Amino acid sequence: MAGSTYGTIFRITTWGESHGRALGVVIDGCPAGLTLSEADIQVYLDRRKPGQSLLSTPRKEDDAVEILSGVFEGRTTGTPISLMVRNTSQRSADYSEIASYYRPGHADYTFNAKYGFRDYRGGGRSSGRETIGRVAAGAIAAKLLKEMGITVTAYTRSIGPIEADISKFDREAILSTPTAMPDKQASSLAEAYLQETMSQLDSSGGVMECLIEGLPAGIGDPVFEKLDANLGKAILSIGAVKAVEIGDGVKVSTAKGSENNDSFRMDGKRIIKNTNHAGGILGGISDGSPILIRAHVKPTPSIFRPQNTVNTNGEEISVQIKGRHDPVILPRAVVVMESMAAITILDALMINMSAKAENLISFYKS
Amino acid sequence: MAGSTYGTIFRITTWGESHGRALGVVIDGCPAGLTLSEADIQVYLDRRKPGQSLLSTPRKEDDAVEILSGVFEGRTTGTPISLMVRNTSQRSADYSEIASYYRPGHADYTFNAKYGFRDYRGGGRSSGRETIGRVAAGAIAAKLLKEMGITVTAYTRSIGPIEADISKFDREAILSTPTAMPDKQASSLAEAYLQETMSQLDSSGGVMECLIEGLPAGIGDPVFEKLDANLGKAILSIGAVKAVEIGDGVKVSTAKGSENNDSFRMDGKRIIKNTNHAGGILGGISDGSPILIRAHVKPTPSIFRPQNTVNTNGEEISVQIKGRHDPVILPRAVVVMESMAAITILDALMINMSAKAENLISFYKS
Amino acid sequence: MAGSTYGTIFRITTWGESHGRALGVVIDGCPAGLTLSEADIQVYLDRRKPGQSLLSTPRKEDDAVEILSGVFEGRTTGTPISLMVRNTSQRSADYSEIASYYRPGHADYTFNAKYGFRDYRGGGRSSGRETIGRVAAGAIAAKLLKEMGITVTAYTRSIGPIEADISKFDREAILSTPTAMPDKQASSLAEAYLQETMSQLDSSGGVMECLIEGLPAGIGDPVFEKLDANLGKAILSIGAVKAVEIGDGVKVSTAKGSENNDSFRMDGKRIIKNTNHAGGILGGISDGSPILIRAHVKPTPSIFRPQNTVNTNGEEISVQIKGRHDPVILPRAVVVMESMAAITILDALMINMSAKAENLISFYKS
Amino acid sequence: MAGSTYGTIFRITTWGESHGRALGVVIDGCPAGLTLSEADIQVYLDRRKPGQSLLSTPRKEDDAVEILSGVFEGRTTGTPISLMVRNTSQRSADYSEIASYYRPGHADYTFNAKYGFRDYRGGGRSSGRETIGRVAAGAIAAKLLKEMGITVTAYTRSIGPIEADISKFDREAILSTPTAMPDKQASSLAEAYLQETMSQLDSSGGVMECLIEGLPAGIGDPVFEKLDANLGKAILSIGAVKAVEIGDGVKVSTAKGSENNDSFRMDGKRIIKNTNHAGGILGGISDGSPILIRAHVKPTPSIFRPQNTVNTNGEEISVQIKGRHDPVILPRAVVVMESMAAITILDALMINMSAKAENLISFYKS
Repeated sequence: MAGSTYGTIFRITTWGESHGRALGVVIDGCPAGLTLSEADIQVYLDRRKPGQSLLSTPRKEDDAVEILSGVFEGRTTGTPISLMVRNTSQRSADYSEIASYYRPGHADYTFNAKYGFRDYRGGGRSSGRETIGRVAAGAIAAKLLKEMGITVTAYTRSIGPIEADISKFDREAILSTPTAMPDKQASSLAEAYLQETMSQLDSSGGVMECLIEGLPAGIGDPVFEKLDANLGKAILSIGAVKAVEIGDGVKVSTAKGSENNDSFRMDGKRIIKNTNHAGGILGGISDGSPILIRAHVKPTPSIFRPQNTVNTNGEEISVQIKGRHDPVILPRAVVVMESMAAITILDALMINMSAKAENLISFYKS
Repeated sequence: MAGSTYGTIFRITTWGESHGRALGVVIDGCPAGLTLSEADIQVYLDRRKPGQSLLSTPRKEDDAVEILSGVFEGRTTGTPISLMVRNTSQRSADYSEIASYYRPGHADYTFNAKYGFRDYRGGGRSSGRETIGRVAAGAIAAKLLKEMGITVTAYTRSIGPIEADISKFDREAILSTPTAMPDKQASSLAEAYLQETMSQLDSSGGVMECLIEGLPAGIGDPVFEKLDANLGKAILSIGAVKAVEIGDGVKVSTAKGSENNDSFRMDGKRIIKNTNHAGGILGGISDGSPILIRAHVKPTPSIFRPQNTVNTNGEEISVQIKGRHDPVILPRAVVVMESMAAITILDALMINMSAKAENLISFYKS
Repeated sequence: MAGSTYGTIFRITTWGESHGRALGVVIDGCPAGLTLSEADIQVYLDRRKPGQSLLSTPRKEDDAVEILSGVFEGRTTGTPISLMVRNTSQRSADYSEIASYYRPGHADYTFNAKYGFRDYRGGGRSSGRETIGRVAAGAIAAKLLKEMGITVTAYTRSIGPIEADISKFDREAILSTPTAMPDKQASSLAEAYLQETMSQLDSSGGVMECLIEGLPAGIGDPVFEKLDANLGKAILSIGAVKAVEIGDGVKVSTAKGSENNDSFRMDGKRIIKNTNHAGGILGGISDGSPILIRAHVKPTPSIFRPQNTVNTNGEEISVQIKGRHDPVILPRAVVVMESMAAITILDALMINMSAKAENLISFYKS
Repeated sequence: MAGSTYGTIFRITTWGESHGRALGVVIDGCPAGLTLSEADIQVYLDRRKPGQSLLSTPRKEDDAVEILSGVFEGRTTGTPISLMVRNTSQRSADYSEIASYYRPGHADYTFNAKYGFRDYRGGGRSSGRETIGRVAAGAIAAKLLKEMGITVTAYTRSIGPIEADISKFDREAILSTPTAMPDKQASSLAEAYLQETMSQLDSSGGVMECLIEGLPAGIGDPVFEKLDANLGKAILSIGAVKAVEIGDGVKVSTAKGSENNDSFRMDGKRIIKNTNHAGGILGGISDGSPILIRAHVKPTPSIFRPQNTVNTNGEEISVQIKGRHDPVILPRAVVVMESMAAITILDALMINMSAKAENLISFYKS
């Protein structure tokens, strides 16, 4: 189980490595009858595409997606949707040097320990390009959710010390700024901070958040398949994420019960909460409030300063990584977070349809 | 999929609710030939038992475990191990009142939204007693890991503002203090803090950590089944956990690459890291360093102050919760964290045995 | 993965061995709100109980089921339903001899090969008593199916050379004859045949069939999760079953296309087939006709004639099995077949609810 | 869960339909370090390729496989192996007519019932071309098994009334005859029979068998994951298979215990059976003898005689199917059976590595 499959009913299987012929995903269990075109998917892929600004690697990839199966006359058929993106600009020669040593902060050493050798070209399967399949699948999940009135929105909350002002949340800015921040002013400051960081041959970490709105109460399962546990796994499975918070997250550990409990009240005939410290999930099940997840992303490990490491002969050496690398992972990771959240939520909704006996019976009884 | 099964090869299924007849777990896929007795399991269960100090509810449960299957002549047979703990001190009468309203911070409302009604006695399946099955299974996983030289140690890192001093790590204190802190002095301060919190009819959150030592490099899978993603899910599936960190966790978002990267060096013939910001995992695969996970636990939602909420008739009311409840969840949750980590690590080790073709072939070739 | 879990959404986990303390099952994912009592389950268990006639072992077991969790105020809560049957009449002494050798036709040798040793008391986990959990779970699945208008009926088709006349199908006879045949006359002949077989210190094989009526068209999935593939696995997982047929089964291999194809016609507004060679499944998906499955069951391996075998010291010996054993497995296996079919069909129905996008969307769109 | 994923550790996901752009498979969990080239896979695909003789449709497809990921410098890397075959000769125009009605014996009607509409071009996902992915994955599984000394051999046992003489088993003939029979004389007779059948505008069913040799005792699990249950599901998931037998199969139902039990004896230090009525599996676990599975395959449903059916407007009509279709499914299905068996056996071997605690411990203990 190399672990490239995710989901129970809506189930995706990704494949491909940085410098192989192609990368892709098979989406199995997508409901039949959804209108779907390559354009629906491309708009998501374009959000993670490199070379969009000075902040991302100028490696030019078109990342054009091809639908190979599962769509007929513009609609999904219920059978596996196979999506592929050809690798076009890989130049393996660039990577021949890193074959001989283990880059700090990368998975070179652990891949070798596990498999006995590794595809050293650009990180192989541990490359950020692995997320192409996730995003292509996420575009489909998000489209289905939208038809149910559920939206998933991820954005950059902070880069290093520069934080977006959420009180002036600007949805449009997420797509238009190079940082994917919902705050143009903070974005400009963050750009300046990153320019300085790059000039120091260094990189920066940051925080991204994801907001799920419109989800009804009652989704998710108690015990091991809690909605927050599954969202947490989904987000922690994105490379470079080192912490995940739900709602108030780390703040709860210094809070008192009287501060942290959200009291209920009526909003017409609907039960709502006065506050949302819980982040929309109680006991692993959605409570009808917006769900908020936060992820802490480590700085890009590829930096241009000399670093100490070990080569494959077991010798200690100093290395200086070449090429061009993003000074921060976040702007392109935001759409990956959004995709993983959308896939997780959709799967939970599909599983949940038979939670009540009366629903199951009335669905089938003619 | 109510989601009460966890694991792929070493697979546990828990069952039971707070005030039902019994609670338990079925462990399927436990390797054959491990010596196992009820005493091995009881010692773990006793660590989560209520009534051990002033800090925990005086509800007296023996929580005596019975092995119902899967062990023959003192050894596991390879077939399902069924473990049961009878509920002895439940008095459902105590809970009749909460049937009519939704307690803030609890899963009462979300269970109703999902299932149409709920077992309102003591939280039913969303009660902390659900973890009895996890801990019983964890005791077995931990025993097997110990035979491979792998130890899993969880402890309370902080309660409210009081933090244990890790530089004076005292392993014995984890088991002997009422807070499960590895620091007797901090534990005394935390006890005082909790007494004061209780006198204010309030409760406190806190932080627990888990250290996994002795795990070889190469365990875990890239992509969706990353070891940190699976540990994260395991820990987030424990009720009241609202954030999970691996290694430096939330600190990485304000760090620079030059600070966060761990450089490699040789330790004799072994490759090690000079630092462990990564918390023992790179690219989802263990790197041979100790693994460190941190969980932020919310304050006990059952507090004795009046709280606003809504009843099942949709009326806004003020309620005051009765009975006795722990002022902090941590001391008894620590062994649950340890158990979930042990189960996750053992499963990953079992899955990993065939990662290299040469190992698979030599195992079977006669 | 010892493999004691079955199903995706409606998921059962069985445990227990012939001479352990108890046997049972955990049913996870049962929809909430189904009325359920121990009596609903006991009626199924009584059909597989030993000692009901001369044809079955006089070992007296009450096999009284206890509901340990998952039912509150007479209804399922959506959380795991744990069911247990205590072993009451096991006398391990009877089995001490078989500890030293491998019984022909039994799993003694293969358990030893796999696990290094075995629970030799009465076959341990490979005993027919393992099916108690399956039948207890099947009773619940069948109850839910009945509410949707779907019935599952298994019966003995033949014992040795004696075959029931299906043209005079007598549903009542299935429950009232000691053979579980739907034909009292054939049942009497079969009883006489079995008496003769027993007098020769021998045992007999037979055929059982299962009919699933009322299932709508469109259930099951193409490719690996074909409804017939899943039913086939479910039935082949019952000990002693050595062949499974769907519809015309083995006859199709000598048929011509013109004979085997079922033509379609209209029945009012409903599409039906003129014949049912296919047994109700086309391309892995139900077609609205009754589903017919047939299983060939080997003769009871425990016979009282001397047999050659090998002992655990690797010596060739002749053995004579003692005790009392059923001369034919079928009468008590029929309810196991019915249970496995019911569980498989119910799970397929639950999975199928989101096959069409429009159904998913209208379910959640408020 | 459209059900296009198969296997637990060695896990394949197939995709593609008859007349889409391409078909393929993702193999996840293949051990690292296996030498693998496109030629290894092509030789298997060529065995299921159409147009190889008068007995198979002259539709010319090259079915050339492309490795898109997971292989680096000629060896598997442990990450997903993505394989693709482009569809080259599809002419959708041929199929426009069948869009309007339901072909008898095909899945047209059931796909519509499930999904609301269907890809009507050549059967879409229910086409025999779906098996391309299975065979491509099977080639890899078989290669790994061969390195362990385990071989999997499938062949045609009979076509209509013509049966191969197994006593003169000719392995070479399986690959060289157009029928895939291990008996050249029977193959000639079968060819004549098929010519006659075709001249009658009809088709024929048949039987295929699969022999698994070299598998050690102890593989497979008791209860639901019995090796025969999994093999049975794997084979029943191949379109057109309507019955599966293990060992003596349907014969056991008329046998007596004294005839059907296989007695054990010593072969040097090895325990073997004197006969193999059980077909190599006892209690769901391999016993070290060859495993024998038999599948009954229905006649090709596409025949050229007029047939009654119903169109999508609910009108009864008579239709005559056009194009060219194989008169028998078997010769090209044999390699699909071999592939599914190989994948199932390999997965069982990988799962089994941790069945004994001592093996797990010694694997990791340094």
